[in-house]
Amino acid sequence: MALKRSPLAPDAFPDLPPVPGVRLAAAACGVKYKGRTDVCLIALDPGATAAGVFTTSKTASAPVEWCRANLSHGKARAILVNSGNANAFTGTAGVTAVQKIAGAAAQALGCRAADVMMASTGVIGEPLPSAPIVAGLAGLTAELDAAAWPAAARAIMTTDTFPKGATRRTEIAGTAVTLNGIAKGSGMIAPDMATMLAFVMTDAKLPAPLLQRLLQLANDRSFNAITVDGDTSTSDSLILGATGQAQNRDVPADASLEDPLLRPFRAALEALLVDLAQQVVRDGEGASKFIAITVTGAASRRAARRIGLAIGNSPLVKTAIAGEDANWGRIVMAVGKAGERADRDRLAIRIGGYPVAEAGQAVPGFDETPVAQHMKGENIDIAVDVGVGRGQATIWTCDLTHGYIDINADYRS
Amino acid sequence: MALKRSPLAPDAFPDLPPVPGVRLAAAACGVKYKGRTDVCLIALDPGATAAGVFTTSKTASAPVEWCRANLSHGKARAILVNSGNANAFTGTAGVTAVQKIAGAAAQALGCRAADVMMASTGVIGEPLPSAPIVAGLAGLTAELDAAAWPAAARAIMTTDTFPKGATRRTEIAGTAVTLNGIAKGSGMIAPDMATMLAFVMTDAKLPAPLLQRLLQLANDRSFNAITVDGDTSTSDSLILGATGQAQNRDVPADASLEDPLLRPFRAALEALLVDLAQQVVRDGEGASKFIAITVTGAASRRAARRIGLAIGNSPLVKTAIAGEDANWGRIVMAVGKAGERADRDRLAIRIGGYPVAEAGQAVPGFDETPVAQHMKGENIDIAVDVGVGRGQATIWTCDLTHGYIDINADYRS
Repeated sequence: MALKRSPLAPDAFPDLPPVPGVRLAAAACGVKYKGRTDVCLIALDPGATAAGVFTTSKTASAPVEWCRANLSHGKARAILVNSGNANAFTGTAGVTAVQKIAGAAAQALGCRAADVMMASTGVIGEPLPSAPIVAGLAGLTAELDAAAWPAAARAIMTTDTFPKGATRRTEIAGTAVTLNGIAKGSGMIAPDMATMLAFVMTDAKLPAPLLQRLLQLANDRSFNAITVDGDTSTSDSLILGATGQAQNRDVPADASLEDPLLRPFRAALEALLVDLAQQVVRDGEGASKFIAITVTGAASRRAARRIGLAIGNSPLVKTAIAGEDANWGRIVMAVGKAGERADRDRLAIRIGGYPVAEAGQAVPGFDETPVAQHMKGENIDIAVDVGVGRGQATIWTCDLTHGYIDINADYRS
Repeated sequence: MALKRSPLAPDAFPDLPPVPGVRLAAAACGVKYKGRTDVCLIALDPGATAAGVFTTSKTASAPVEWCRANLSHGKARAILVNSGNANAFTGTAGVTAVQKIAGAAAQALGCRAADVMMASTGVIGEPLPSAPIVAGLAGLTAELDAAAWPAAARAIMTTDTFPKGATRRTEIAGTAVTLNGIAKGSGMIAPDMATMLAFVMTDAKLPAPLLQRLLQLANDRSFNAITVDGDTSTSDSLILGATGQAQNRDVPADASLEDPLLRPFRAALEALLVDLAQQVVRDGEGASKFIAITVTGAASRRAARRIGLAIGNSPLVKTAIAGEDANWGRIVMAVGKAGERADRDRLAIRIGGYPVAEAGQAVPGFDETPVAQHMKGENIDIAVDVGVGRGQATIWTCDLTHGYIDINADYRS
C-alpha cells in the first residue's frame, strides 16, 4: 500500500551540517522492500562514547538485547540499522543473525563486534536474513560520508511517510558543539521508552556515564511524552553517540545534571529530542491533527503525565478530535479513568485557550464558535487543570482516523 | 446517525419470564432523543435486598454517587434509568436533578427516596433536565408490568444496535429461583468496573451483604473481563436486586461463597453476567469480530488478566483482526508491553487452535491456510501461553474497524 505523506509533515527535511567524527551511508540490501534503501550504517571515529535507552517490552528484540549488553561499555564505533524486519521473536536464529552482522561490520570497520550497535525495525517474528546485509557491508563502508544524513533517515523508514531529522548548535564551556538526530516511527508508539528508533550524534566530548544520564533525562521529556496508539514496540531504541572531536573542556563523569556548564547542551539535546519526537507524532499513522495536552494541578509530575496519557491514548477522545468535535465530556471521562487524584468539582478544561469547563461543569453560556474554529485547525491544544496540586506535564499525540485502520488492517498484505 | 445492527448480534431478544416481585415500564420522556423510549423504571416489591458495583472513575457521575451512598443500606424499591444524558460532570445541578427525580419517584411508588436507585447514560457535561422525567413518572408507575423486560432493555440503549437481555433458572436449597438481566453498552467499555449499565433481578431471598459479595465475584469474571476500547465510563453501574419472593431457605449473610448451597446460584449469576457482558462486546462500536483471548502460564491470575487486556486493548492487534490478518507478531508486542512476567523464549501462541508460534519463534514450516480460514470467521480465538507459571484468564473483546471511527467521530452531531 502506498502511503500518502502526512498532512502534518514539515515542509522539508532540515539541513543537517556534518558532525566531526561521524559518517553515514545507506544501501538497498533487499531485506524485505524492493527498490528502496533499507540498511543504514552510522560510523563513529575511534574514541566515541555512547549511551542508549531501550524499550521496556518484556519481549524485546535480539538487537535490543545486543545493544543493552554492549552499550554498558559506554563505547560505540558503529550503528547498523535495517528496516523491513524487526528481528524480534526470532529465537536463537535472531541472536545468530545479530552476531553475524555485527561481526561482519566490525571486520569491515576494523573494530570489535561489541562496538557495533544494531537496530532493526519492521515485521515481528520473521527470521532476519543476515546474508544480504553482510553482502552490503563493503559498499556501505566504502560510501561512508559526513553528509549522508537524509539518506540515512530515509533508509530506516517503515510506515513513515516522511524522513525525520533535526539539528542543534550549542556549546560546552564556550566550545561550539553540534547535535544531529534522525528518527523513524509512526505506529506502535507509546511511552516508557516506547517509541521507535532514533540516533543522535554529537561531536561533544562527554564521558559515557554522564552521556547516559543526560540522555535519560531528555528522553523522559521528549519520546516518553508522546503516544500514537499506546502500543509499545519490541524494538524501540534511542542511541546517542559523542565523538569528542569538538575538544571541549573535560566534564567529569559524575557532574551534576544541574551544573551550569551543562545547561546549554542539556537544553539543546532536549529540544532536539522533542523536535524528533513531535515529528514522529506528526507522522502518526493516519494522523490529521497534532494534539498537545497539558495537565496542571495534579498531585505530582508523574500523576500529571498519567492523566495526560489517559487523555492522549483514549480512542474516544482521539476520534472526537478527528471529527473536529470539541467533545470535552470525553476528556472528563479520560481524566476519571487515569486512576490519579483529580477534584471533579474543581476540574477545568480549555480547548485552544478557550475555557469550556470550570469548577466541575460546563462554562455557563459558553460560546462554542471559537472552539469549533480551533477544532478545524491542524494543531489542537487541550489544557486540563485537575485542581489538587502542582504537578504538571505535557503530552503530544495525534487523532485516530480511518487512515489508522487502513494502514494497520492491511500492513502485511 | 442511524446505526446498523451489529453483525455479531444474537438472532433475537431472549424470552425473559416474570421475576416475582419485579415490574418494569418504559416511556418516551424526550430527555434527548425524539420518537423513542428513553426512561425505564424497574420497581421491586417491599423487602427486596440489593447490591451494586460501580465505575472506578475519579469523575463518577451524580447518579453513581447517589447509588453508592444509598445502596450501602442494602435495600432498593426502584431503579430509574434514563438514556441520552449521563448527568456526569454537571456539578450541583446534577446532584439536584438526581434528588428531584428520586424524590418524585419515591412519592409515586410510596417509598423513601433513598430506596430509589438511579442510572443515567449518554452525553457527558450537559445538565440533565429533571422535569420531563418527573412528568413521565405517573405514566411509568401506572404501566408497571412484569413482562416489560424487552421494553426496558430498549429504553436504556444509546449507541447500542440491539437490546441486551439474558435469563437463567437455578435453585437455592431445592427452591427454584429465576434471574433476569438487561444491559446496555457498546463504547467506553473497559474493565475495572468499567463497562456500562446492567440490571439483574432475581426472586431469590438473599441478605444484602452476601448479595454484594456474590455480585462482586461474578462481575470480576464477566464485565471486568471485557473491553471494547479501553475507555472507562463515568457512569458504569451494575445493580442486582433480590425480591426474596422465591422464599428459599435462609442463607446467612456471612455464608462462604464456597458453600455448596450457593454453588448453583453463583454459577447461574456468573453465567448470566458473562452472557450480558459478551452481548456488550458483540455490540462493540463497529465490531465485526468477537475475540476470545485466553492467557495461560502467567505468574498469577491477575498477571494473566493484564496480559489478556494488553492484547485485547491493542489497537494494532484489533486492526489486524479487522483485516483478517493473523499478524501474531503484534500479539507478541502486546504481551511484551503488558509489564507482566513472560518468558519470551517459551512463549506459545495458538490462533483458532492452530499453533503459530512456539518456544519463542514461529512454528517451523507452519501452514497459514487453516489460520487464514479461521480469521475470516466471526469468532476469533487467541490462546497465549507465557511460560512462567499457572495463572490464567480469559478476556473478551472485538476488533477495531472503520465503523468505530464513523460512530465516534460523529457522536454529538
